Amino acid sequence: MAVLYEKVALIGLGLIASSMAHAMRAAGLAGHIAGHAKTMQTRQTALELGICDSVHDSAVGAVIDADLVVLCVPVGAMEVVAAEIAPHLKPGATVTDVGSVKQAVIAAVGPHLPQSVAFIPGHPIAGTEHSGPRSGFASLFRNRWWLLTPLPGTDPAAVSRLRALCAGMGANVDEMDAAHHDLVLAVTSHTPHLIAYTMVGVADDLGRVTDSEVIKYSAAGFRDFTRIAASDPTMWRDVFLTNKDATLEILGRFTEELFALQRAIRTGDGDHLHAYFTRTRAIRRGIIEAGQDTDAPDFGRTPPPNRLA
Amino acid sequence: MAVLYEKVALIGLGLIASSMAHAMRAAGLAGHIAGHAKTMQTRQTALELGICDSVHDSAVGAVIDADLVVLCVPVGAMEVVAAEIAPHLKPGATVTDVGSVKQAVIAAVGPHLPQSVAFIPGHPIAGTEHSGPRSGFASLFRNRWWLLTPLPGTDPAAVSRLRALCAGMGANVDEMDAAHHDLVLAVTSHTPHLIAYTMVGVADDLGRVTDSEVIKYSAAGFRDFTRIAASDPTMWRDVFLTNKDATLEILGRFTEELFALQRAIRTGDGDHLHAYFTRTRAIRRGIIEAGQDTDAPDFGRTPPPNRLA
Repeated sequence: MAVLYEKVALIGLGLIASSMAHAMRAAGLAGHIAGHAKTMQTRQTALELGICDSVHDSAVGAVIDADLVVLCVPVGAMEVVAAEIAPHLKPGATVTDVGSVKQAVIAAVGPHLPQSVAFIPGHPIAGTEHSGPRSGFASLFRNRWWLLTPLPGTDPAAVSRLRALCAGMGANVDEMDAAHHDLVLAVTSHTPHLIAYTMVGVADDLGRVTDSEVIKYSAAGFRDFTRIAASDPTMWRDVFLTNKDATLEILGRFTEELFALQRAIRTGDGDHLHAYFTRTRAIRRGIIEAGQDTDAPDFGRTPPPNRLA
Repeated sequence: MAVLYEKVALIGLGLIASSMAHAMRAAGLAGHIAGHAKTMQTRQTALELGICDSVHDSAVGAVIDADLVVLCVPVGAMEVVAAEIAPHLKPGATVTDVGSVKQAVIAAVGPHLPQSVAFIPGHPIAGTEHSGPRSGFASLFRNRWWLLTPLPGTDPAAVSRLRALCAGMGANVDEMDAAHHDLVLAVTSHTPHLIAYTMVGVADDLGRVTDSEVIKYSAAGFRDFTRIAASDPTMWRDVFLTNKDATLEILGRFTEELFALQRAIRTGDGDHLHAYFTRTRAIRRGIIEAGQDTDAPDFGRTPPPNRLA
């Protein structure tokens, strides 16, 4: 594939940034990849693993002359970075981000950027419960959605080039309004994460069921929850603080439904339970048919064969 | 390995029973395996796949002369089966079950069985979201816990032989009190399943976020929930109806914690959220260290290499 951006700057070098670097290299999409991370250890790891061609102890150092700047820091840290790099951006450059929330990023980053750059917020719906530069791998985005939420008036050529980059890394690309994005993700990702965190916390609190027993006898349901609840705490704190309204709305609905099921258990209404569980089973089929997960049984998970070290 | 039971009768031929058959055959633990399922289609499938040496259209037909009878039907169906087979059990036989709830099974099955058999309730903590005779595979129980809840006074030789069978199929075996079992499982399995069902139901209800979008953009968190919520509706209805008290207690604690986190989101208390998420991350590490799951990233799941067709 042809090089789409001569110089790419990755600000933050965690799971998403390192996976992007692996994927861009594998497909020959980027010339030079510059990276910035706060800690020296992360920068050194990025060099050792070949994630970056150059690392920089300031975000400004990384963005100089970059054709594409990707903000890969937690949502709560984006405003400071945007203000810092803004005066140093190359005219005609594209700035994007990979935050899980889009309205808050637009509000935090947008006002700082000059008119001479194209700001195209983005969100790759891909990840694992691991974090840091060593957790990245080239196939992370393959057959996953990468949502872009460009603002009205954005240069179509810049959007089109960024779409080509995402597609080149294996993702399916879609565009939507930022507010709609935040609601959809509150349902499919943010609220489920909060619930998983809560359930794992409850298990940990129970004195009668000792920690070791909860862990020892953890069945499939709970094991999946602990996997979700092992995600990066800083990233998720920022998600909930910045997608507050949509998350609270979905949480309200969740509690309402949960109380209805709880009541069915208390009153012994087996028909209600069975009908509910039958309906949710159908949704699973839809997800498999949509190619968003495999039908392999949830057991004996093995690492993906194409995972890079 | 030596044959432990000359004749084993499997009553019900779903995921657990078919996996037991594969595992017992692989390790040479059983002589003849007789099976009963309600539908002719399931019985035919069991014969075709070699799960059973003989199939029977009545449970009574399967248990004649059996040294071990395994009740693999939903918890709510066990009492009827127990009453039916009781007069036909071979003196000295062992009867066990694989239900996810133990106190209710003891109350439903125990009174029907004659003194001449050893009743040893059991629960293999293993499964996938698939069901039916085609979903079984020999390695399902490998390195998983198989809990037995024998009643006081049970013949130790019978318990010991059943333990050997479970261990021979690859499981780690433990014994505990039935009431304690039900509480532990309410935390690690039953409540997480109910929560997953609820969240998937909420997503399905939302008119503004269309079905196709929920499915199309389903991120890791929600995809895991749909996997859990795809489990067998009849089995889970029975679990909640028969482990009512423990489930309602854990649900009460869950709601309390969820409200505290919801309040932290509403008031913008980032420190509370971060501390909570950091704590839950540590539990995940414990589960991996306990060997109850792998550290492989939750992505690109592939079927276990040792899965039987």
